[in-house]
Amino acid sequence: MQETRLDTARIRAARQVIDPVFLDTPLYRCEALEPRLGCTVSVKLETANPVRSFKARGTELVTSLLTAGGSTAAVCASAGNLGQALAWSGRGRGLDVTVVASRSAPATKLDRIRALGARLELVDGDFDTARERAADIARHDGIRLVEDSLDIETCEGAATIGLELVDGAPSFDAVLIALGGGAMATGVGHVLKALAPGVEVICVQPLGAPAMTLSWRQRRVVTTGPTDTIADGVAGRRPIPDVLDDLLLVADDAVLVREASIVAGMRMLLDHAGLVVEPSAALGIAAILENRDRFAGRHVVTIVCGSNVNVDAYHRWVGTAALGQGC
Amino acid sequence: MQETRLDTARIRAARQVIDPVFLDTPLYRCEALEPRLGCTVSVKLETANPVRSFKARGTELVTSLLTAGGSTAAVCASAGNLGQALAWSGRGRGLDVTVVASRSAPATKLDRIRALGARLELVDGDFDTARERAADIARHDGIRLVEDSLDIETCEGAATIGLELVDGAPSFDAVLIALGGGAMATGVGHVLKALAPGVEVICVQPLGAPAMTLSWRQRRVVTTGPTDTIADGVAGRRPIPDVLDDLLLVADDAVLVREASIVAGMRMLLDHAGLVVEPSAALGIAAILENRDRFAGRHVVTIVCGSNVNVDAYHRWVGTAALGQGC
Repeated sequence: MQETRLDTARIRAARQVIDPVFLDTPLYRCEALEPRLGCTVSVKLETANPVRSFKARGTELVTSLLTAGGSTAAVCASAGNLGQALAWSGRGRGLDVTVVASRSAPATKLDRIRALGARLELVDGDFDTARERAADIARHDGIRLVEDSLDIETCEGAATIGLELVDGAPSFDAVLIALGGGAMATGVGHVLKALAPGVEVICVQPLGAPAMTLSWRQRRVVTTGPTDTIADGVAGRRPIPDVLDDLLLVADDAVLVREASIVAGMRMLLDHAGLVVEPSAALGIAAILENRDRFAGRHVVTIVCGSNVNVDAYHRWVGTAALGQGC
Repeated sequence: MQETRLDTARIRAARQVIDPVFLDTPLYRCEALEPRLGCTVSVKLETANPVRSFKARGTELVTSLLTAGGSTAAVCASAGNLGQALAWSGRGRGLDVTVVASRSAPATKLDRIRALGARLELVDGDFDTARERAADIARHDGIRLVEDSLDIETCEGAATIGLELVDGAPSFDAVLIALGGGAMATGVGHVLKALAPGVEVICVQPLGAPAMTLSWRQRRVVTTGPTDTIADGVAGRRPIPDVLDDLLLVADDAVLVREASIVAGMRMLLDHAGLVVEPSAALGIAAILENRDRFAGRHVVTIVCGSNVNVDAYHRWVGTAALGQGC
């Protein structure tokens, strides 16, 4: 394949830097999901760790390099999960971490960022507004701006998931990856294309936050108006050109799913796999639900990338319906 | 310590036999739980695997030995999780598996046993009635009766959890272990006493199913009348003498908890750790809730041993309350 910004040897080396609590996460078949999905389904579970998402794989790398270089502070914009992860990784290394987030980000994510000792600044507006403010802070304070998906370490961290998928002989045909800024899609996609090129790399984004998918389809950056999705973790409007370039090299497809499918995916993961997930983590199941024919009889891996969900909202989305549905 | 029936070298060797999908499960701090519990809490998560409980660690050993010896069939009594695990392990090795369970076992567990290809026989009565019937079948058919906690492989399998806990330098002060038949308590307890003797081994059982705890306290087998607890996974009336002997050697304490505490523990794990667990898996948190002073300032590990819970019942237990409580 053409070269992305990522390098497989560097990704392998990254495993030595990342706290093992974030590595070698469970990968297992969920047969109870399969009758309803019509395909073989394995879950790569990224929620059973101190920050309940995969993001610390990347922040471990970022903060390790920062402290090695003598830095004492960093700032990032976050939809919630990167901020938690940077706060966790920074705390352990004595870094002062500032996180800028939208006031409308889930309270549970914001609470955890504060609890982990980071300074949290809220902005009126969305994730892209937070990105601008974080860049201002970095310039003003002369500290490192950690940019999710643009900073290669965030992609390399996510890419270690890919190494774990291809460890041993992968028996799966496709991997479904939540698509937001693109760190996970380009990172995991790079490893799959390098080491298991026969595996289909399918990115999944909400119809209500389609900027990166539209960009991938049109092979140029497409920005959108305000996003409209419960999948707060992947809701951006302004794709990063370098990340899109990589995505064009590694993604076989990018699909958009409806909100109802995301909720149905969350409910299925609760009812039949016993997993509480945030909306972004149900995008893969949503993609199968919307196109069972495409996946029929195949073995599909879905990366369950986070479980930082507001409990009240979660119950509103899945609670009543699950009550009626039983198991 | 005095010698239990277990042997640490055999437990280490067991790791080579057990499918890796059941090994090296997540172990991580859940800081979000800590303000409410007043101690440092780490979770050892045994639910992210194809049978959603730790039981397959043991059935992998049992079925491996059976097939090596030329057996083609096995039968067990099960509260639900052992049956799933034996069905899973047996299916992969071409064994005919029969599971005997109480008609009152959770439907979700029974459905999964069937789905995994085992023959399921239901009895009127409880787990101990199922044990008798399974023994009858074994005698009549001349096949191996797999007896949870009595069969050393079931204890050795569970004991591999203990090895994973003491890997590296354990930083924790106490481990909370759900107590039912005793396989997990004696297995994990053996390893801790052998390799990390300073760690307190605390078994936790529901007040409504206290037979093994009462037996441990009185140092003799105490049987009880019918159990009365939602923690179906640990509800037995007749402790096995050999298992009690081992438990007396490795347990530092055995405590009984109320049903309300179990529900509160389930709810906390949902709200603050994003974990769906079956009641037996919340016993450790329940024990902390009932005696915060005992654990104040200490680092406690709780083994989250299973997540096979009936969704309807789960929502009844935790749903409405969680809705009101928020996060």
